[in-house]
Amino acid sequence: MGSHQAWQTLATEKQAAQANKIPKGWRLPSEYLAGDETSAHGVMEIPAKCGILNAEELHITQDFNAVTLAIAVQRGTIKAKSVATAFCKRAAIAQQLTNCLTETMFDDAIKRGEFLDEYLELHGKPMGPLHGAPISMKDTFDYAGVQSTMGIVSYLGNPVPSEHGTSAATLLDLGAILHCKTNVSQALMSSDDHNNVFGRGSSGGEGALVALRGSLLGVGTDMAGSIRISALCSGTYGFKPSSGRGPFFGSTFCHRMGSPGFPPVAGPLACSFDDMAFFLQAVLESHPWDRDPTVLAIPWRAEVATSTPEKLRIGFILEDPKFPVHPPVCRTMESSAQVLAQAGHEVIPLHGFPSLEVAMNLGLDSFSFVNTVEWRRHLDVSGEPIVPSLVDNMPFITRRIEKGGYSIDEIFAFNLACLQYKAAWNAVFVRHKLDFLICPGAETTAIPHDTWGTPPYTVVWSLTECPAVILPVGQAMKNMDRNDLAPSASPRPYQSELVDGAPTAIQVVVRLYQDEELLAAGRVIDRCLRKANNLRSPE
Amino acid sequence: MGSHQAWQTLATEKQAAQANKIPKGWRLPSEYLAGDETSAHGVMEIPAKCGILNAEELHITQDFNAVTLAIAVQRGTIKAKSVATAFCKRAAIAQQLTNCLTETMFDDAIKRGEFLDEYLELHGKPMGPLHGAPISMKDTFDYAGVQSTMGIVSYLGNPVPSEHGTSAATLLDLGAILHCKTNVSQALMSSDDHNNVFGRGSSGGEGALVALRGSLLGVGTDMAGSIRISALCSGTYGFKPSSGRGPFFGSTFCHRMGSPGFPPVAGPLACSFDDMAFFLQAVLESHPWDRDPTVLAIPWRAEVATSTPEKLRIGFILEDPKFPVHPPVCRTMESSAQVLAQAGHEVIPLHGFPSLEVAMNLGLDSFSFVNTVEWRRHLDVSGEPIVPSLVDNMPFITRRIEKGGYSIDEIFAFNLACLQYKAAWNAVFVRHKLDFLICPGAETTAIPHDTWGTPPYTVVWSLTECPAVILPVGQAMKNMDRNDLAPSASPRPYQSELVDGAPTAIQVVVRLYQDEELLAAGRVIDRCLRKANNLRSPE
Repeated sequence: MGSHQAWQTLATEKQAAQANKIPKGWRLPSEYLAGDETSAHGVMEIPAKCGILNAEELHITQDFNAVTLAIAVQRGTIKAKSVATAFCKRAAIAQQLTNCLTETMFDDAIKRGEFLDEYLELHGKPMGPLHGAPISMKDTFDYAGVQSTMGIVSYLGNPVPSEHGTSAATLLDLGAILHCKTNVSQALMSSDDHNNVFGRGSSGGEGALVALRGSLLGVGTDMAGSIRISALCSGTYGFKPSSGRGPFFGSTFCHRMGSPGFPPVAGPLACSFDDMAFFLQAVLESHPWDRDPTVLAIPWRAEVATSTPEKLRIGFILEDPKFPVHPPVCRTMESSAQVLAQAGHEVIPLHGFPSLEVAMNLGLDSFSFVNTVEWRRHLDVSGEPIVPSLVDNMPFITRRIEKGGYSIDEIFAFNLACLQYKAAWNAVFVRHKLDFLICPGAETTAIPHDTWGTPPYTVVWSLTECPAVILPVGQAMKNMDRNDLAPSASPRPYQSELVDGAPTAIQVVVRLYQDEELLAAGRVIDRCLRKANNLRSPE
Repeated sequence: MGSHQAWQTLATEKQAAQANKIPKGWRLPSEYLAGDETSAHGVMEIPAKCGILNAEELHITQDFNAVTLAIAVQRGTIKAKSVATAFCKRAAIAQQLTNCLTETMFDDAIKRGEFLDEYLELHGKPMGPLHGAPISMKDTFDYAGVQSTMGIVSYLGNPVPSEHGTSAATLLDLGAILHCKTNVSQALMSSDDHNNVFGRGSSGGEGALVALRGSLLGVGTDMAGSIRISALCSGTYGFKPSSGRGPFFGSTFCHRMGSPGFPPVAGPLACSFDDMAFFLQAVLESHPWDRDPTVLAIPWRAEVATSTPEKLRIGFILEDPKFPVHPPVCRTMESSAQVLAQAGHEVIPLHGFPSLEVAMNLGLDSFSFVNTVEWRRHLDVSGEPIVPSLVDNMPFITRRIEKGGYSIDEIFAFNLACLQYKAAWNAVFVRHKLDFLICPGAETTAIPHDTWGTPPYTVVWSLTECPAVILPVGQAMKNMDRNDLAPSASPRPYQSELVDGAPTAIQVVVRLYQDEELLAAGRVIDRCLRKANNLRSPE
């Protein structure tokens, strides 16, 4: 880097201001800060041993999931104020370890806890189903009184939102405690959580925070895989709903509204499967379409979402040969299929399915409509550079800009190609009478910074708009993952030592608008895999 | 017109061939053919008195609706073959009176009736819920063995579809009898049912056929109001579902696929409210999304669609001042609101709602994307001219073509404007806590040919993609409709003598994807209005 520039000064000031908002007593001793920032994995034990949380706070943050914690608060056995305090502390620790936060609302959250306790006392009933649940949100969602910069330096000059966005308002009305906002990739355009305001995080801000239990539920957005990649890298659950089913309005964007490409969608990351279901049911049953006209007024089918289907027909995709998977992913997929078959489900290996390369190319078209011009303009205002992970993607997402952008003819062709591609996947579901399918969430586990590249295994379900969920299954194990199965020509070579212990996951997918069916089937699969893998079901 | 041209020869040959397909014994004596082709209204009595149908056939075509007729066939009290024969005869009569058909499949339909009778005998149960129901389809829907020309001369040279389209296949699988296809406007682009192959019809082919009970259920498509305008002009019911809920694949188009504008949707026209509900439930419960990937896999909520809500909150729109309504429409709207209020519903007059002019302009944008070039190209192949009603609309729908079409920038702006417009209507529903709203279906009743112009009262719900239904309510009555209330500056002056006796209707609208709620509320309103107006509920 050359001389210190104006944008760097602004970013440094913002970082310092954010660091100062962490109360002195919640700051980690320097001995804990020497860890490797490339992985949240190595820091999992620190919150419990650093001494910042007392015994009750450790109990609150470790021994519950969002459902059981909300029940405890709503029964009055745990105070909402204690929940807010405990999670603010733990989020502060997570921030110091992984740089996962952008904004903190610790004072607000603790006051909110007091308010919820008073509310329960006064009314004898909770404010809503999320009463007492600690929830974090991706930086894009507006929260009154804190900035929505999305890590863009020029946005540091934007007015602070004076009102909550739709998503924050909805969650607060349902009784949630909102204590922080989480870090994002530059312009939301790469898979690395890295921007010039907040610097580099791990595994997607939301994923890292939830993995460290600095929050039990996080709200992310997903246009190419952001929720799912964040979840699979951090070993948490991540649910991308069908397009139009997650409330999204009241967010700050750096993309131009009105793209003819496929839309992003909001959804939860969580420590447990039940928490995702809890979140989605609470939000969808609150009729979010009243506030947010982009949300489809499709009533939530709770009876389907909470059902327990018995014998499932499961399509199985080990890999698209064009995008070969790494040994830990291969082992995870194969052993999961085996476990599901042994449990009495019918596993149908799929071959000759629609190429993920087609989806990836259509995805890149969608991302490179005029949007590219828009967000670059926001970066250029301050002179900040494009971060390395995005530099690598730029040739893909600017390829059409160079030749003068898209014509309306090309938009027609794009739409038709998307329709045909969706139809081809629909036919796969119909032909094999699938309840759902499982496939990798990515070719790799979490890997070193700036090497992720394009995400075909998640983009495909963004383009088809199908709901998809990431279930954490286990870990990469250098002694079990067969080096000889590593793809020989991957741009991202398998490095068994580097990824040893990294979380592994499977992706479960159903057809568009079958979000409730995905929760029902996903819960069955999750329990089945956790039992087989001797994983403790997270509290 | 000048000298007889090649395209005219082709059209004349096609018309002659179609006329010849009508069996000799089903041809109307010339005394019945002197009527005024501008209105189906004057010909309503002819099928009963012309002597072509015997007593049983009159009974079958007049004393049932689709539901009760299907029940009779499924119980074996009426033969499906008799149903097929009776409705083929009556459709042939309707064709001779109103030129409402394009293709006839009378032989197929009668064989189909025989097959259904054998099926019932053999299996002891009906083939599906529509077993025995006579259904017609707009010409766009492919049916194996007959052309899909849509009245475009150059399409007369297209190969005849060798397979049924998705819609026809779905209806046949459900047990329907398909006996004919109905006439369309040129390039599906105007409100007048007029093209150069089949000539000029009345009130939309589907509407005229159903009104004359040549079919009990018709399948139409609606992008700006085709189903609804056809229904309101002919005094039938017409239901435009939410975008993506009506099966549409397997149709022939003259428009380019992949438009970034809003999509057309398929839906029923019917003689009775119950028949629309019957059709929608049968089709949606058959999981049409398995065959047609454009149909959203949103499960049909039968319990909602068949419920009877009691006290409804009804938004009431008498007119948009920019598009003043004619006296019969005004009286129909006001008296309907009064009846509903007297029945205990809460009627909330709406003022300051989003301008229909904005919707109309966005609609014209959508229709004039590259589509305009596409369908004109199909017309130009044969040299056929644009029909008068479409000539009138051409300045609107080609306005952008003249200046070189749309840029992707303008597509972004269009999408954003649509989103904002939808949001504004959503806010109206929320602010007034409306279950639904009622508004005119058009400024006028059926009026003389080539005077319809643009359809703001239907386009608005195409743009917002909300489900909307036309309920027939009564007739224009020159002695009751106050001439002094006629708009002074309308491009279509109110002519009390000309429209006397023309059907009047109201339009009922709910929010996107609340199709089931629309059926439930619509049924309540329909019964209430029919009772108050002393209208016999149609069999």
